[in-house]
Amino acid sequence: MRWLECDTFNCSVQRALDVVGDRWSLLILREAFHGVRRFDDMATHLRISESVLTRRLRGLMEADVLTRVAYRGPGARTRYEYRLTERGMELFPVITALMQWGDRHLVDEPASAWSVTHKTCGEPVEVVVRCVHDHEVLDPYQTRTEPGPAARRLPTSTEAG
Amino acid sequence: MRWLECDTFNCSVQRALDVVGDRWSLLILREAFHGVRRFDDMATHLRISESVLTRRLRGLMEADVLTRVAYRGPGARTRYEYRLTERGMELFPVITALMQWGDRHLVDEPASAWSVTHKTCGEPVEVVVRCVHDHEVLDPYQTRTEPGPAARRLPTSTEAG
Repeated sequence: MRWLECDTFNCSVQRALDVVGDRWSLLILREAFHGVRRFDDMATHLRISESVLTRRLRGLMEADVLTRVAYRGPGARTRYEYRLTERGMELFPVITALMQWGDRHLVDEPASAWSVTHKTCGEPVEVVVRCVHDHEVLDPYQTRTEPGPAARRLPTSTEAG
Repeated sequence: MRWLECDTFNCSVQRALDVVGDRWSLLILREAFHGVRRFDDMATHLRISESVLTRRLRGLMEADVLTRVAYRGPGARTRYEYRLTERGMELFPVITALMQWGDRHLVDEPASAWSVTHKTCGEPVEVVVRCVHDHEVLDPYQTRTEPGPAARRLPTSTEAG
């Protein structure tokens, strides 16, 4: 089966994008990875309308990417924080890969606005695609794509593609 | 300067999202990484309207992520292919990170619809965030984020954040 003959309904890229495939959701995640947890802080920093932020947070909670936790300061009313779930934490490579690409191609000066470094040694982090076997860093030409066990042929497809 | 005091106008994540931060653009890139180059193939496989596809392709070309190359079969009229530029190729970790996250959390069965492997050894690829110094794989807790040389304070911010 060739890629064009494959039904993409269960493509993992597509499913991931159904959850986080819009600019606001990914920017909310950027804030979350920076430790921003409060609705008001997100709204102000992102300059996003409260209704859009509410909707996106709800979507990210439904997808188990964020979770809402109650907190209350002394004498204050209960408020909520939005925290990354374990599943949300695993989007770290997605956000970091976007940052890396932006750092390489879209900056005004040869310097980053924000740096992410390894706590222990202080060196910058990088995102790489590698082989699980020998850990070699790979570019697309060094990889092969092919249908996996869950691949399904497009219903209408015969020899097309 | 804390993150919430930082003006995000030059945040690399945000700039990357201005280019590829929508579901259709990222799905077009998925097709491109699968070797799909022709407008009609993309339109059919993505089930995207031609006008939306045209608009997204234009945006990706303006951002130097895709380039349009003329080709002509014997006796046929000139047609165009859309190919990843070098800059586009460097989005490989972004797409692969989305796929990996989907594979881990959003599949119906414990199997992928599509597999990406290392051509030479046949082992699956993975995306990791690592330290450039000692190449250790890192989770967010092992990293530190802080303002870089290009960080700018929000004009309206004083002590806020």
